Amino acid sequence: MEEYSIVGKRISKVDAQSKALGEAKYAIDIYLPGMLHGKVLRSIHPHARILRIDTEKAKRLRGVKTVITAEDLPDIKYGNWLVDMRIFARGKVRYIGEPVAAVAAVDEDTASEALELITVEYEELPAVFDPEQAMLPGAPILHEDLKHYETRFPKKEGSMFGNVNYNAIIQQGDIETGFANSDMIFEDTFRTPKSHASYLEPHTSVAAFDSEGRVTVWTTTQRPHLNQVIVSSLLGLQVSKIRVIPCHVGGGYGGKTRTLSEPIAVALAQRANVPVRVAFSREEEFISTTTRHSAITKIKTGVKRDGTLVACRMDLVFDTGAYAQTINAAWLGALTAVGPYRIPHVKVEVFGVYTNKTMSGAFRGYGTPQVNFARESQLDKIAHDLNIDPVEIRLKNCFKKGDVQPTGHKLVSVNIEKTIIEAAEKIGWKKSQKNKNRAFGIACGFTPCGGLATSCIVRVNQDGTAVVNSGAVDMGQGLKTALSQIVGEELGINFEDITLISGDTDSTYFDVGIFSDRGTHTTGLAAKMAAMDAKSQIFDLAAEELEANPDELYLHDGKIFVKGVPKPLIPLKDLLSRSVFKKGRPIIGRASINPDTPPMDIKYVQGATSKFPSTYTFATAAVEVEVDRDTGKPTVIKAVGVNDCGTVINPDGAEGQIDGGMVTGLGFGLFEEMLIENGQVLNPNFLEYRIPTALDMPVLSRAIVESYDENGPFGAKGVGNSPVINMAPAIANAIYGAVGVRIKELPITPEKILESLEERRR
Amino acid sequence: MEEYSIVGKRISKVDAQSKALGEAKYAIDIYLPGMLHGKVLRSIHPHARILRIDTEKAKRLRGVKTVITAEDLPDIKYGNWLVDMRIFARGKVRYIGEPVAAVAAVDEDTASEALELITVEYEELPAVFDPEQAMLPGAPILHEDLKHYETRFPKKEGSMFGNVNYNAIIQQGDIETGFANSDMIFEDTFRTPKSHASYLEPHTSVAAFDSEGRVTVWTTTQRPHLNQVIVSSLLGLQVSKIRVIPCHVGGGYGGKTRTLSEPIAVALAQRANVPVRVAFSREEEFISTTTRHSAITKIKTGVKRDGTLVACRMDLVFDTGAYAQTINAAWLGALTAVGPYRIPHVKVEVFGVYTNKTMSGAFRGYGTPQVNFARESQLDKIAHDLNIDPVEIRLKNCFKKGDVQPTGHKLVSVNIEKTIIEAAEKIGWKKSQKNKNRAFGIACGFTPCGGLATSCIVRVNQDGTAVVNSGAVDMGQGLKTALSQIVGEELGINFEDITLISGDTDSTYFDVGIFSDRGTHTTGLAAKMAAMDAKSQIFDLAAEELEANPDELYLHDGKIFVKGVPKPLIPLKDLLSRSVFKKGRPIIGRASINPDTPPMDIKYVQGATSKFPSTYTFATAAVEVEVDRDTGKPTVIKAVGVNDCGTVINPDGAEGQIDGGMVTGLGFGLFEEMLIENGQVLNPNFLEYRIPTALDMPVLSRAIVESYDENGPFGAKGVGNSPVINMAPAIANAIYGAVGVRIKELPITPEKILESLEERRR
Repeated sequence: MEEYSIVGKRISKVDAQSKALGEAKYAIDIYLPGMLHGKVLRSIHPHARILRIDTEKAKRLRGVKTVITAEDLPDIKYGNWLVDMRIFARGKVRYIGEPVAAVAAVDEDTASEALELITVEYEELPAVFDPEQAMLPGAPILHEDLKHYETRFPKKEGSMFGNVNYNAIIQQGDIETGFANSDMIFEDTFRTPKSHASYLEPHTSVAAFDSEGRVTVWTTTQRPHLNQVIVSSLLGLQVSKIRVIPCHVGGGYGGKTRTLSEPIAVALAQRANVPVRVAFSREEEFISTTTRHSAITKIKTGVKRDGTLVACRMDLVFDTGAYAQTINAAWLGALTAVGPYRIPHVKVEVFGVYTNKTMSGAFRGYGTPQVNFARESQLDKIAHDLNIDPVEIRLKNCFKKGDVQPTGHKLVSVNIEKTIIEAAEKIGWKKSQKNKNRAFGIACGFTPCGGLATSCIVRVNQDGTAVVNSGAVDMGQGLKTALSQIVGEELGINFEDITLISGDTDSTYFDVGIFSDRGTHTTGLAAKMAAMDAKSQIFDLAAEELEANPDELYLHDGKIFVKGVPKPLIPLKDLLSRSVFKKGRPIIGRASINPDTPPMDIKYVQGATSKFPSTYTFATAAVEVEVDRDTGKPTVIKAVGVNDCGTVINPDGAEGQIDGGMVTGLGFGLFEEMLIENGQVLNPNFLEYRIPTALDMPVLSRAIVESYDENGPFGAKGVGNSPVINMAPAIANAIYGAVGVRIKELPITPEKILESLEERRR
Repeated sequence: MEEYSIVGKRISKVDAQSKALGEAKYAIDIYLPGMLHGKVLRSIHPHARILRIDTEKAKRLRGVKTVITAEDLPDIKYGNWLVDMRIFARGKVRYIGEPVAAVAAVDEDTASEALELITVEYEELPAVFDPEQAMLPGAPILHEDLKHYETRFPKKEGSMFGNVNYNAIIQQGDIETGFANSDMIFEDTFRTPKSHASYLEPHTSVAAFDSEGRVTVWTTTQRPHLNQVIVSSLLGLQVSKIRVIPCHVGGGYGGKTRTLSEPIAVALAQRANVPVRVAFSREEEFISTTTRHSAITKIKTGVKRDGTLVACRMDLVFDTGAYAQTINAAWLGALTAVGPYRIPHVKVEVFGVYTNKTMSGAFRGYGTPQVNFARESQLDKIAHDLNIDPVEIRLKNCFKKGDVQPTGHKLVSVNIEKTIIEAAEKIGWKKSQKNKNRAFGIACGFTPCGGLATSCIVRVNQDGTAVVNSGAVDMGQGLKTALSQIVGEELGINFEDITLISGDTDSTYFDVGIFSDRGTHTTGLAAKMAAMDAKSQIFDLAAEELEANPDELYLHDGKIFVKGVPKPLIPLKDLLSRSVFKKGRPIIGRASINPDTPPMDIKYVQGATSKFPSTYTFATAAVEVEVDRDTGKPTVIKAVGVNDCGTVINPDGAEGQIDGGMVTGLGFGLFEEMLIENGQVLNPNFLEYRIPTALDMPVLSRAIVESYDENGPFGAKGVGNSPVINMAPAIANAIYGAVGVRIKELPITPEKILESLEERRR
């Protein structure tokens, strides 16, 4: 990485100071004169017909300015992949917490009081909470009209039926032949719970119309431009009349990829004709935003006695809740299910299934943590049964560069082998355990990275400084810093000379959102391409002004050089200062890209090639765990994360992502679970919903191994998702090593360990 | 114009409602928490050496947060054409009103009190106020170091000397031969005063730094991007770290093309570390902002007995005041001096001269009103003396399409002939006057239009609506509306589907500023080109998706058609909605242009061709005036303005410009004059500085004649400047017709008429 001046350098986040000083504005900091406060009335039944909503009393309460229900809005559904949800329930409610009405009032208390004055007459319907139950004939049906729902992927005949909203199959080789050729076959079922992204900042939006009928929405979001489009379609406003200003994001992790508070705020502001803020409470976050899909993973694996994987069949059920808003998580789960391994015979089938619970969606890892827990747990079991070192069995089967996925995707950057070796080394894998209740565990995997539409503009000013306008949002992960590094590197100017304008839909251009590790890899690619475009305009100008050959020019340290000539031809600012009054046009580089997106359909899998995801990142985690046999309590003592994320743009940022991802994985493995009884979330707060705290932290260490992805800027891939996926199986595997019990259902609580230990004793 | 759907339509200004409702934000409406108020200490001497500035007492005043002088800032001068001015005087002051120091305090009163506590020790120097005096040997020299000043035009040896800061010569044919071949020769001298643009809103800026060291400046300006560049260079800040947000402009007329309050606000905010507002008073506007150059125009014209113009020599002296900030006004005056006439032998020489008065600069008409008053007055005299109808003499000599200017500029759109004919018709020229004190007057002329660098981005959204990001500012003239019409026409979508984002340097791209009629013509051209670029991307996408030939497609009414097929191929929104998730990139059209700019040098005139100005607009005014022989009071009864401004984008807007321009010309002709005694402005307020009021209004009518300018969007030219230039000479000519006296010095006051009448009687 020595060839780069800015890429690969440890540069502080550009917004570090404003956040540290408390100057960074979050959506809740937006306070407009005369602003009203919006509150949402939510369903108290998991499944019920709405017979009547009486808002008259609420409307008469002093201080209430407007009350709206579905009846006041166009009957339009939304959803990026499957169009199944409305702002407010219409006809029936499908989960406890579903929005039924909203109120805007002069203060929050008045708004809350008004909610209590709204009468909703329901006719309760039978509900279903378990996805396997929901797939059975005779189960209560959530969406009677599902068959006619619009999808953004080609519909397959019969793939949407009953409560099944999604079905895809990935195949390679012949699974039955594979099992026939195997020496041993392993069959297991694993379960992972519904969990919440648990960002600190709840969904908050402030909407204000101006006298020209244009609305500005300040919000917390990972996807301002898609919010703009969705608010437009839901409320019948032109896209051009909506401005979305994303404030600093107080955590997202995938949970801010929905459009939830925005259309409510806009609809209320439109009717009240004054600005309206809608700020969700923590409870609302838990009961009515997206969560990680709970999943049931059945896995049947055939192996040779030497540990060679021969066949793998996986059957996945993803519980989408009442609305399948992010059903592509199920697709991505299927895509990564059999793992980063060479397996000749593969069949993966995934079902997305409606249940009467809050919708599932994106959450760091995005479909993969569920399947990775299953597969990596089973692989550990296979290794133990075959008496092969768990490290060895992974090294023996893992992908190499150039391998082709069952989907036909050729992998251009793969260094998983080195992540396994380094993780084992760093945890001290070879050291034998003296303490009998303590053991190492290891797991590896891969996650999809990048793709979908984005754009970027890079202007170069008269003084040689640059401004980057990117539609992508920095949700705290340091994207603004990374994009600035990429542009600075490409332009050959100093990091300090770059300013990044991000997110505001008035000043930036379409980006589909920051999720699926597409920030650095895809929006970074657009930033690099826009910078290249600007650079070529600069070289043309230099060539014209100074009679040089544009092909022989390069930029470094803010100066233009001719290749092979050590003395600079001209400082960039001297060239560009002329462009204001004399020759030369304003330098405006542009890039607008849309890496191919496949239809989510079996046909795709049976031969089509595609760039979505653009690439994959690879990771291994190794942990050392001690189990208290008396209490069952597992303690993760050390954890090591090693990632192959291509060229690292900013090591501080990448390492922060690995550490953070491992902690998310730790929570997924040991603590986090939304407890739901008859559709009611029992622990909708941070007292009862346990995320890891400082006291739960192992000694964390991390490393990055090199690879170069030719479709990423300077070879970069993403690094947000893959560190999450290995912690749970590595911990589970270590627990097995320590005390000999294998827990197949997350989270791995002391109770489950104790119970298993007791079972073993019996 | 029937071929267009939106261009040529009477569409209300997009910001009409927000202005009518009082919602439009002007710079003075920006109020930031903790904001300080800045005040400027100004020179009390027209010319003096600064010996010492003592700010200690001021700094100690309670409530004062910072005091700055030139010593606190980098020693950097600025100026777009001639780099001769600083934010604060350094070493010496050159006019009464020049900034010497500034204070930021908790309120305006405290700031004013602090100014009184600053002691400046001056050593008075001899001053010069008359430009002809200033050109004489031995005159006090304002800029001793002038020779070494940087210029943005190539310096000619010996063209800057003494107080002469600018000299240019335009020649055609041989002037002496011309006079030798003439039957009669006329020689006259005309004088026009220093006058003020008299916009209602004084210069106001609010500057606020954020914790990352980036500053936002809310201001009232015609050129946000150039302000950004100039604040950058003056204060040593990177361009990318400055955001200029132009608020609604409360009138500009050229007077908001300087950078005056901005750097003071930024410098104070930087030191005080809190936001600072600097708002000029009306008096400050009069004594320390730009004014129209006062000018002395000597004109010697040779004609044939039949009225054919043979030779014209003009010698112009433009009084630049103490700083030649907009010396190109002198150049443009020279460029248009001999008028829109075919004259074989021409010599124009112009001098820009320093005097100890506030700087001169741009003001509607931009150099031409001064010379047009002279030439059109003299032409009337020639017509009378030759007994030729003033209308006929103009028609006989005026330019036709394809004629070439003395500068070598070929005129591609000329319809002045028709403006003369229509103006004469509309005023009722042929009707004989019965009342002896009443007469008609006519004058015509042309003004430069367009040129210099600009850029534009046009994005087309998923619903087929469009957003235009333009660096150009709407200063009330309706530019946002016009640009939206241009883009809508080019894209074939509805006007209502377009939103224009203008001016904010974070969300728009370089434009040099709105002056010299470059709004519709040049920034409009960029908008059209960006829309064309977007359209070609749309057609490529349509071709790819629908197997059409992109060359055969066109857009109309938001739908894509194949040429010759009446049924639309696909609605635009249906095509573009796919581009989010499926094929197709975000549609982002871009244009970045810089119509050639000439060096302001005799060499240019002697052969170089150039596109600057891009083109010319032509206009005629005809008036009917009655003079009260007892009081000398002239009353303009009727006034007609007819313009050739190419294709009209918005007739309401164009007609408003013509009416407004005629009123500005009326004030220039009859009322406005900054009375200056020993460098002191005696009438720095609207009580004593008289602009036309409702009571002074004639019956106004106006018309537009067609032409098509191939370098403008849909053939459009500008229309802001040319209506201004003809009123003063038309009125002067009418007064001559009415009472037989010819006033050669503006404004034409009753006193001057009375005095001339008395002189004639003697």
